[in-house]
Amino acid sequence: MSTDPTTTIGIGIGIVGLGKIARDEHIPAIAGEAAFQLRALASRSTTLPDVECYETLEAMLAEAADVDAVALCTPPQVRYALAARALTAGKHVLLEKPPGMTLSEVVDLRDMAAGSGCSLFATWHSRFAAGVEPARQWLAERRVRTVRILWKEDVRVWHPGQEWIWEPGGLGVFDPGINALSILTRIMPHAVFLTEAELEVPENRQAPIAANLAFTDRRGADIRAEFDWRQEGPQLWTITVETEEGTLELAEGGSRLAIDGEAVPLSAAGEYPGIYRRFADLVRSGTSDVDVSPQRHVADAFMMGRRIAVAPFTE
Amino acid sequence: MSTDPTTTIGIGIGIVGLGKIARDEHIPAIAGEAAFQLRALASRSTTLPDVECYETLEAMLAEAADVDAVALCTPPQVRYALAARALTAGKHVLLEKPPGMTLSEVVDLRDMAAGSGCSLFATWHSRFAAGVEPARQWLAERRVRTVRILWKEDVRVWHPGQEWIWEPGGLGVFDPGINALSILTRIMPHAVFLTEAELEVPENRQAPIAANLAFTDRRGADIRAEFDWRQEGPQLWTITVETEEGTLELAEGGSRLAIDGEAVPLSAAGEYPGIYRRFADLVRSGTSDVDVSPQRHVADAFMMGRRIAVAPFTE
Repeated sequence: MSTDPTTTIGIGIGIVGLGKIARDEHIPAIAGEAAFQLRALASRSTTLPDVECYETLEAMLAEAADVDAVALCTPPQVRYALAARALTAGKHVLLEKPPGMTLSEVVDLRDMAAGSGCSLFATWHSRFAAGVEPARQWLAERRVRTVRILWKEDVRVWHPGQEWIWEPGGLGVFDPGINALSILTRIMPHAVFLTEAELEVPENRQAPIAANLAFTDRRGADIRAEFDWRQEGPQLWTITVETEEGTLELAEGGSRLAIDGEAVPLSAAGEYPGIYRRFADLVRSGTSDVDVSPQRHVADAFMMGRRIAVAPFTE
Repeated sequence: MSTDPTTTIGIGIGIVGLGKIARDEHIPAIAGEAAFQLRALASRSTTLPDVECYETLEAMLAEAADVDAVALCTPPQVRYALAARALTAGKHVLLEKPPGMTLSEVVDLRDMAAGSGCSLFATWHSRFAAGVEPARQWLAERRVRTVRILWKEDVRVWHPGQEWIWEPGGLGVFDPGINALSILTRIMPHAVFLTEAELEVPENRQAPIAANLAFTDRRGADIRAEFDWRQEGPQLWTITVETEEGTLELAEGGSRLAIDGEAVPLSAAGEYPGIYRRFADLVRSGTSDVDVSPQRHVADAFMMGRRIAVAPFTE
């Protein structure tokens, strides 16, 4: 661990990969969080003003002595190798979602971090939506009867031209669906597990365009999720939880919360400022936060789900 | 925990499900292990002489006060509910492989056992093949360059008429392949993770009939596995590990071991006696052994593998 939080004014951070998510979310969130100072960028194609720029993570690690942590904003295919290298170099590591291509490589990184003294943070941005923490607290004391998840969006609007999402490892409709699962696994008072899964796979693709899932928990809750990428008109990202003492609804991806039909006032802060506040806490306390359960449910669905061939998808 | 090993002569055990595996393996192994006394059976269709017989696990738990542990020999689809009930009743639990339908339910059982004082043992019988422990010890100090796994058998010979193995959750060729993965994950000095997977799925089936897998570990080992259910003639269950200091070969599912071509003398004991010796140790020490890594690699392969349609399979 290269940070001594008692003597360092800010945690020096480097970004690896400068795509849309880094520009739109990570850079503004780092700028808004006093604990961090953006000191370096690794990108083969782009530079940033007022920041040391390197072509590769290796060059950054070799030359930027004031970088204590790295945020990996690259596609998941290369995340393991980069994270392993950064941890080995004694850096704290933040991973975009999903944290890896496989569960096993994420588990290996978690073990590597545990032995290193560095913090590893596998982020699930939807868990930082404003309604999620109040929902978790409200549910903690209640008995859940049913959960209904509707995660229905138009892939042509949200992923235009992204061929990789249809390839093996791209996860298809589970790419957005894993956000719903990251909320579900955070707010439920008991762990859930899949009991049935149907995956609708276009004849000309590898990955599902829709999925129908059933889960339960050790108390027998009836939990169903519908993921669909063919949604036209209103887009739906809602989770409705019926308990013995009332009904909770998270809407708009967790950014709105209502209890028994009454809107709950929420902070207007975005998801990524919450992520960086949490990352600062992890670095200061020398701990990691690596919860693979959202991705484990996806893997379970691929392993035990029934595949149904549906109409070919073309853009 | 209902066993006090200092005052109990033997651990009273009940078997749930009396199929082929229970008759051929569990009952003889329990009879041969002094720590256990077979005291009860739960089966809807069969009874055993000299053993209390019940129709259900619930009846056994309610009436057989001298049962301290249960061995679940039922199909994986019902294992979670049975295991949860037995743990809640304060019984130690042994699970046949695979330990559940999903990774998540096994993780939930592991958490349940951790809070209960009971031992949970998710068994992988191939890990108790005679060559596996000597292989693990030999590899512990060596640097692995390559691993080649050939797990090729004739499904018509080994699984005649078993339609369920082709259904979702039946895992197809991973049903035997997971045995190879349970050995691999035991003998390798570092954790492995999948980097590529091809699944060959018959046009008329849900589950793969063959799989080609590539793994690596944090030191860059080159690990490949070929699983095939279309093997006629000689049946192959071999794992060859090339290190910087010699080559190790496990053959016949781990029951034969050679190092640099020289056969290593091994005990003739079977796999299940070793399983029950280990279970007795776990119960005595109040600990659990739940390693989901073999099944995690299967889930990873289903999640990130490329599916290739191959000729229909009919028996």
